[in-house]
Amino acid sequence: MDELKARIRAEGQYLGNGILKVDSLLNHQMDSGLMLRMGQEIARRFTGVRIDRILTAEVSGIGPALTTGIALHVPVVYARKQKPLTMSGPVYLEVAPSHTKGGEVLLLVSAEFLPAGDHVLIIDDFLASGKTIDSLVRIVHSARCHLAGIAVVIEKTFETGREALQKYGAPIEALASISAIGEDGSVVFAD
Amino acid sequence: MDELKARIRAEGQYLGNGILKVDSLLNHQMDSGLMLRMGQEIARRFTGVRIDRILTAEVSGIGPALTTGIALHVPVVYARKQKPLTMSGPVYLEVAPSHTKGGEVLLLVSAEFLPAGDHVLIIDDFLASGKTIDSLVRIVHSARCHLAGIAVVIEKTFETGREALQKYGAPIEALASISAIGEDGSVVFAD
Repeated sequence: MDELKARIRAEGQYLGNGILKVDSLLNHQMDSGLMLRMGQEIARRFTGVRIDRILTAEVSGIGPALTTGIALHVPVVYARKQKPLTMSGPVYLEVAPSHTKGGEVLLLVSAEFLPAGDHVLIIDDFLASGKTIDSLVRIVHSARCHLAGIAVVIEKTFETGREALQKYGAPIEALASISAIGEDGSVVFAD
Repeated sequence: MDELKARIRAEGQYLGNGILKVDSLLNHQMDSGLMLRMGQEIARRFTGVRIDRILTAEVSGIGPALTTGIALHVPVVYARKQKPLTMSGPVYLEVAPSHTKGGEVLLLVSAEFLPAGDHVLIIDDFLASGKTIDSLVRIVHSARCHLAGIAVVIEKTFETGREALQKYGAPIEALASISAIGEDGSVVFAD
């Protein structure tokens, strides 16, 4: 997606250790127009694929997941990382390592919002190691839902996430794929 | 907003202690179409008011803030509750008590995303005690921005949030105002 790639080139900041800061458009400030168009683009890439609901993880997945949900007219569920007082009843629970916060995070989804048999599109902001998304896939399978696909805003193809997720046999789409980041912070896109 | 009130009546669950669970449409699962229309309605209520950006707090404010940002064509900033590795540079920091998680939460906003002089609309999911929103107002003022208004999805008018926030002299809008919740969970709307 050319608009997104131009913004990453202009505003992305490389912090070392493979971490790209895009807080001005995705992870702290959201460009609402760009977010809308990213959702439309994800929806376009899954034309013809049955999608009943979208699953993402709080916090930064919520924006692109919501705009894709708007484009596809389906509900969006976000996995919680802490159990709020309002969460009651059975939950699906997985543990994933956190790339940008350190340590591990819980991913909790109330069973009532993943009805068995639904076709679920997983959306997140980044695909790097793939571990968060892998946890979401395990939740989808625990719920006896069908994994319709995986979509991310930014993929770092120099990490191994895509290889780790391909075993699930679902289509994986990235709006911008970064194949290398130079020591000076210059971003090389895969295509 | 009649559509929202009908959904609260049908799906809201009263957990006691003034806590209303609306996880099926707002706080865990998001109804994407309803979320879009709520953003349009908030934008409509601020017709003629200068708004340069929207400020909300992760997690549950992000949905309505984003769709309002889409309707108004302005960026949306969400206060973080933990410092991610990508957050560098000066931040505005406030501490607020958490209603649904217990304890206190930090609210962190990078200074670069609140430029002085901007007119800021604060959006959140609930207005109850008003303490989270009060913290966001203090951040707006710390940044020498102008408070354009406050909008929430659900106000509990039997708590004191509106009184606490009226001192700021900005318009306060709620899409649904709940004046009482019966012991049986029945919801009484203010209008």
